[in-house]
Parts: sequence; structure tokens; C-alpha cells
Amino acid sequence: MSEQTDLSNALRSTFLLAKAPDSLIEKLVTHSKSEKLSKGQIIIIHDDPAEHFFFIKKGWIKTYRESEDGHQSIVDILHPGQLFAEDSAFDDSPYAYTAEATEDSEILSMPISLLSQNIQTSPDMARHALRYISLKQKQKIHEIEHMTLQSAAQKIGCFILRLLKPNQTETINIETRFPYDKTLVAAKLGIQPETFSRALKKLKDTANLSIKGSAITIHDLNALSQFTCSACSAKYPCKDRQ
Amino acid sequence: MSEQTDLSNALRSTFLLAKAPDSLIEKLVTHSKSEKLSKGQIIIIHDDPAEHFFFIKKGWIKTYRESEDGHQSIVDILHPGQLFAEDSAFDDSPYAYTAEATEDSEILSMPISLLSQNIQTSPDMARHALRYISLKQKQKIHEIEHMTLQSAAQKIGCFILRLLKPNQTETINIETRFPYDKTLVAAKLGIQPETFSRALKKLKDTANLSIKGSAITIHDLNALSQFTCSACSAKYPCKDRQ
Repeated sequence: MSEQTDLSNALRSTFLLAKAPDSLIEKLVTHSKSEKLSKGQIIIIHDDPAEHFFFIKKGWIKTYRESEDGHQSIVDILHPGQLFAEDSAFDDSPYAYTAEATEDSEILSMPISLLSQNIQTSPDMARHALRYISLKQKQKIHEIEHMTLQSAAQKIGCFILRLLKPNQTETINIETRFPYDKTLVAAKLGIQPETFSRALKKLKDTANLSIKGSAITIHDLNALSQFTCSACSAKYPCKDRQ
Repeated sequence: MSEQTDLSNALRSTFLLAKAPDSLIEKLVTHSKSEKLSKGQIIIIHDDPAEHFFFIKKGWIKTYRESEDGHQSIVDILHPGQLFAEDSAFDDSPYAYTAEATEDSEILSMPISLLSQNIQTSPDMARHALRYISLKQKQKIHEIEHMTLQSAAQKIGCFILRLLKPNQTETINIETRFPYDKTLVAAKLGIQPETFSRALKKLKDTANLSIKGSAITIHDLNALSQFTCSACSAKYPCKDRQ
């Protein structure tokens, strides 16, 4: 298969572009630029005019906002196959966050004007984008609910449950792993580093988990989901995963 | 002016319906039903199939989610002139929250199918809804930032700054008031009731405010915005107010 076809397929594998017209995908591929990033490299800056949006080919990208006094609030930690900065096309707004590579990464950069023009001319694409961003908005409402109602241990439990495949069938001795550094997990969940280890211990003891380094064994999925989801309006497995 | 014209104008005063086609506004008015609510009355329940959306004529409406163990996470506290449950029209989803009158209120209930059909048939309306929900999603990202970075005193300061008119020109001795009960303010900001009084005292001392009951005097707007917005990526006045 040609590299062009690979790129087309990769873009089509995202929720937003799954049903995009061929003409848009072709233009995006033609005007795309592959970029290699070193760990810590800044890609876009919050509030700068939006010129590109991005597809992650390799690595992890952290999106965040920074307060005047220098603290970060994480918006998302994104993995290969995901887009970022696409949301600026929906309301012609500046970048809503800064984006930084958390490890050596590779991304595809595409002119955001191609996406916003397509939304202007294709009603189907506008309605699909509406559905997409509505789901994202609900995810944020859910995130706020977690921040308000869950203990630190429950937040980590919820993070682990979301690592599992949506069609997970086993309920005992499930193995998974933290996909990135635990300091970053703590930051994503809004947990202070000094609280994180204590919360992790509480989770292991209460919900019957083993954690060694980044390796996690869930000995009893029901115990974990019961402990975690009692402080949530949704039941496991969550509907709002994309 | 007829009651019909009053209702049309009221709906048009909302951001979402400001540019809606006349035919939609007419249908909404024709099929609308005015409802009087007592304090504490439940209007819709989270996860029920969405049948209506609502315009607030009088009173305050609290939208929230409830965890299995009975705790509430507030989504919003809404005032006259605002819509709720309209977001279910964008992705044909069940109600994303429970809604309850926090005092004797009056609302207009309208079939949500009229709104979702219009989004399907009018590309302009679909694009306008996209812009609308994108802004709401950014507000939620901003809310998460506040929850992560601001102290309880700064959260209350931010709440007070958002009470001011966008075109506020005076900078000293500005008078305003808490629009609803302080217990509800604390719940909206995710602050424990026992922390709230202490945080309020800290805010008064640090940012030069007087607060008596619900009456607030901001003696120095710059002092307040400096104290509050140092823990935020945005500067006063915020762009993301609707």
C-alpha cells in the first residue's frame, strides 16, 4: 500500500474524520507534513491563532494550560491515532491549549483551514462535528464529576478501568499497565504527587490490585468497579469512551 | 405586544436560538408549555430519554448528576433567559443531568424533536449549534482548570468576578451580590461547606472585599482580579462568558 493510502486510512480511523468526504481526506493528506518531535518539544501554544491541527503517529502528547503563576492544568494526554487542536476549527478560535511531546513522538500537521472550510460547505460534516464535540463536552462534564465526587484512590481506579478494552470479558486476574509515567497520571487526575502513592496503596488494599512499576494486575474486576464507580453517576463500563 | 411575540423574543435572546429560522421559533412557541415549579421540584432525570428542552422564565435551576452513593456533582446553576437540556438535541442523547428548581420557578418546556429536526435540515443551524457547544466545551475545560489550580478563596473570587457586567468600568467600591444561597455557591464550586467560610474570610482579607449576607463590595477590582487570576491561564475579564 502507498504511503498516501496509509495516511488516508489513518485519518479515517479517527471518529471525527471517519465519514469525511474523500475530497477532504485527499486534500489533508496532500497538505500534511510529518514532524518528528523530541521529548519536551512544544508544538502549539495556548491562545496563539490556530493554523494547524494534528494527528498523532507515534508517542504521547500532553495538552495543557498554564496559569500566570506557572502551574499546569492538564487538558488531555493523547496517544497515537488521536487528533488534537481540531476543536479550533469548530468556532474559529485560537488554540485552546498548549501541546507538548511527553516523549520522542511523530505527528502529522495539517492546515486547519481545510477542516473549517469543509465544515462550512458540507452540512453532513458540520452535523458530524456537532455530534463529536457534544461527546467531548459530556466527557468534560464527567471529568468534573470525577474531580468533585471521587477520592484520589477512586480516581486512579477509574483511570485503570478506562485502560481496559471496551469488550473486556474476563473478570479475574486481568493484566494491564500504566501507559505513561505515574507522575503524568497524577497530573492528569489532578492529584498532588505526594498524595498519589498513598492513594495507590489505598486502592491496592481496598480493591484487590497488584501494582509493580507500571504493571497492574486486577485480581477482581467487580471489586475494582464497585469501589470506583460507587462515587460516580455512571456504571462500569462507561458509555462516554471514544 | 402579544404573548406569542414575547415568547419569540425571549427565545431569540438566547445564544443558541438568536439566528434560528422564523419557522423554528414559531413552531417552538406553538408547542411550548409554561410550567410553574415549586422549590425542590425535579424537572428531568439524568439518563432518561430526552423529550423536551427548556427555557427559564423565572427562578434558578440546578442541573446535577448523582453518584450511586448519593452525592451530587453540580453541572450548572442556571438563571432566567438560559436554556437547559438543549444539548441532548446535538447527539440525540439521553438527558446528561438531572434538573431541579432551587426556588419557586417558571419554565417553558418545548419538544426537543423540533430542535433536532431543524439541525438536520438547516446547515446554518447545525453550524451555529457547533459553535455554541464548542464554546460550552471550552467553558468546561476552563472549569477544570479552576478546579485544578485555584485555591478555594480564588474560586470564590472568580465566581464574584463573573457576576460583574462584561462592560464594567469602575474599579473601586463595586457593589454586587451572591445571586443565590452560599451553600449552593459552595456546591457549584466543589468546595466543602466547612471550608467555604474559611475561604471567604481569606478572600476578604487578601483581596480587599466586604461581604455582609449576600451583599458584596469589591473595594479594589485590580486587587481581586490579581489575587484570583494569578492561578488561571486567562486574564480578567474572561472571554469565555456567554
